[in-house]
Amino acid sequence: MASTSTVHGQSYLEYLKPTLERFFSGVEELLFIPYARPGGITHDAYTNHASRFFETLKINVKGLHQFEDPKAAIAAAQGIFTGGGNTFVLVKALHELGLMAALREQLFIGTPYLGTSAGSNICGINMQTTNDMPIAYPPSFKTLGMIPCNINPHYLDPIAGSTHMGETRETRINEFHSQVNIPVIGLREGSWLEVHGKAISLKGAHTARLFRQGQQPTELETNTQITSYF
Amino acid sequence: MASTSTVHGQSYLEYLKPTLERFFSGVEELLFIPYARPGGITHDAYTNHASRFFETLKINVKGLHQFEDPKAAIAAAQGIFTGGGNTFVLVKALHELGLMAALREQLFIGTPYLGTSAGSNICGINMQTTNDMPIAYPPSFKTLGMIPCNINPHYLDPIAGSTHMGETRETRINEFHSQVNIPVIGLREGSWLEVHGKAISLKGAHTARLFRQGQQPTELETNTQITSYF
Repeated sequence: MASTSTVHGQSYLEYLKPTLERFFSGVEELLFIPYARPGGITHDAYTNHASRFFETLKINVKGLHQFEDPKAAIAAAQGIFTGGGNTFVLVKALHELGLMAALREQLFIGTPYLGTSAGSNICGINMQTTNDMPIAYPPSFKTLGMIPCNINPHYLDPIAGSTHMGETRETRINEFHSQVNIPVIGLREGSWLEVHGKAISLKGAHTARLFRQGQQPTELETNTQITSYF
Repeated sequence: MASTSTVHGQSYLEYLKPTLERFFSGVEELLFIPYARPGGITHDAYTNHASRFFETLKINVKGLHQFEDPKAAIAAAQGIFTGGGNTFVLVKALHELGLMAALREQLFIGTPYLGTSAGSNICGINMQTTNDMPIAYPPSFKTLGMIPCNINPHYLDPIAGSTHMGETRETRINEFHSQVNIPVIGLREGSWLEVHGKAISLKGAHTARLFRQGQQPTELETNTQITSYF
């Protein structure tokens, strides 16, 4: 569950390549979920984009939109990758196609899964800590619940000396906690969560910021297990 | 319909004071809609905050939450002000209390209305160009449709040289246009729209950025009528 697909100055998924090589070892074909459509690109174009990266790992990529029976495709998948884009568009598609439960089931039996940005957002309990614009209306905000918290990807620290009056990310997450009691991990770009069974570890270049209702935020150290916080 | 209640370095609504003095002249009691609850503050605290400003204009403020029959309160209002905060929370409350239609009716007969941020967002056709986090699930994203477009408040230009990989505001609005064909006005902080009947004018310190599906964005000059763009 990665904050971003791409870190500044690098190519698509480059910073994750050594990790993904290990994580998807043995996977010959990866199922790609292109529904988040960054910038509104087509499912085909997005799948090709992911495919070009995974060729370098000798993994074949197929788009979920290419299957007549997407539920069966999920149930048969050796590995799954959900790309970033717009979380509302992604969640609407997953709910309307009845795929949220199928995906959840397939992940709970241990199928290796990569999510970036919106694809990580949906691993939380709900999508209510996305940064995205509500350009589509999903029938529900509920998501996969793979971890006992929500993710805020592309987490940004307040900018010192900013004159902008729009809310900081921290203010937004605090507002979320005025409505909902679910912990939120602010994942900075270059960070990701590695989940094996019940064990959740923070990985990558940065600490992460954990927000819990009614408590001061905590910085989580990278390369540590963070399971005990939940 | 103001981008923000507060510009950097000034007090609450200070930059709008001369305008509001004229606009609400003759109004003795203003109905305040506190549902957007910035930072999760209470309806009472938010109403008091608005009240302290309007005292300086000798206008009494009552919160909509104080009325047993909020529909009747809207229908009887001399003037209405919806404060900023979270657009999802605001729209959920207005729909669930059945007030969206009542508000729309009262505005279409010419009742003077001030919206700031989320309170401006709801003047658009839908709330789908809000910047807010979806911390609540409204039964619909439809809003008042007082103008033939949507508003993106707190509009931010891309930051030159930024290393952040999250979407710029312009990218987000373009993604909106991959789903929905409604023009969007990016209102910078310090700008507002003044609407009289069908005439829409841009006011305040900045140009505004108009986004239309399939077209290059256009900068709108301040102190001009922009009605002809729609």
